[in-house]
Amino acid sequence: MTMTMGRPLEFNPDYALEAAMQLFWRKGYESSSLQDLLGTMGLSKSSFYQTFNSKHALFQQCIQHYRQTLTDEMQAQLQETGSGKTFITTLFHNVSNETTGPDARRGCLLMNTASEFAQSDPEISELVSNSIEQLTKIFEQAIQQAQQQGDISPDNDSQALATYLVSSMSGLRNMVKAGADRKTVKQIADVVISALD
Amino acid sequence: MTMTMGRPLEFNPDYALEAAMQLFWRKGYESSSLQDLLGTMGLSKSSFYQTFNSKHALFQQCIQHYRQTLTDEMQAQLQETGSGKTFITTLFHNVSNETTGPDARRGCLLMNTASEFAQSDPEISELVSNSIEQLTKIFEQAIQQAQQQGDISPDNDSQALATYLVSSMSGLRNMVKAGADRKTVKQIADVVISALD
Repeated sequence: MTMTMGRPLEFNPDYALEAAMQLFWRKGYESSSLQDLLGTMGLSKSSFYQTFNSKHALFQQCIQHYRQTLTDEMQAQLQETGSGKTFITTLFHNVSNETTGPDARRGCLLMNTASEFAQSDPEISELVSNSIEQLTKIFEQAIQQAQQQGDISPDNDSQALATYLVSSMSGLRNMVKAGADRKTVKQIADVVISALD
Repeated sequence: MTMTMGRPLEFNPDYALEAAMQLFWRKGYESSSLQDLLGTMGLSKSSFYQTFNSKHALFQQCIQHYRQTLTDEMQAQLQETGSGKTFITTLFHNVSNETTGPDARRGCLLMNTASEFAQSDPEISELVSNSIEQLTKIFEQAIQQAQQQGDISPDNDSQALATYLVSSMSGLRNMVKAGADRKTVKQIADVVISALD
């Protein structure tokens, strides 16, 4: 146990936030009870409210944390891959790995949230919209890169293709949630990518 | 009030089922409380359990009712339109009408359910899978028709394209839930359809 300013640090807020995010990701907002949250975060009710204010405020922090992690990862992958088209193709083919394993079928927290709330909560809606915009920007970067690299026709509207990819990714992950197997996911991904040519 | 066998018919089960389906569609399974259901269905607790057994059993009936209505409508539209390609294009462009109005942003009950349950309930999963298979079959019919009519290349795998369309429709409706406007939806729909060529 770490000591800070002579007072025991009761918990690690980063760890607690990550644990809460994982729970919301798996179960959704409504189905994650306060009891579930306290359990997975290892917090007392009073520490919870003192640190995170409310379930709603915590959820917003979780969305921000998810978005940050996701966009950082995607940016790093795009940089590392060096090919816009390969980056996109890999991202879509990787979804087929989500059909099995411990984290199978939990989808994307942003799209799950869009689906659960469907614009019923202005603060959450705004957060989801902004996050999707950020994801779209990364796809747009990848498409423009692929256009410069001669892998996608420069006549295509990179912004329209980027929005299409976000929509397609959301659909594909919903198919996984609906029970699609690896082969089907791969097949859909191939058709999605074919539209870029 | 209709009288049957000398006993007042307390409620119309078809109407009650439709009302429940509308509620589940708007709010999802978990968020639709028994209280909400009784209210919208106009039922007492005892009539509810006598007629529908449980919330879970009622939900399954609602999914079946939704699927039947949807597939009947799609079949009729396909027949009426006469052109496989026009049928598909119209279906996708119509999603842009879901961005406003009283029923805006509620998505597709089947895909909402796939998203909410994510394979956590075997009975519901089976029902969703079967329903999606039926929708895929209608899309496949439309694609084969378009291939015969020379609007889609016969070299394309009609089954793969059909699954792609179901996935794309799910993604598009999720974008609507995430706040996409009419113009964006139309733009995505156009790219989706371009992959069929």
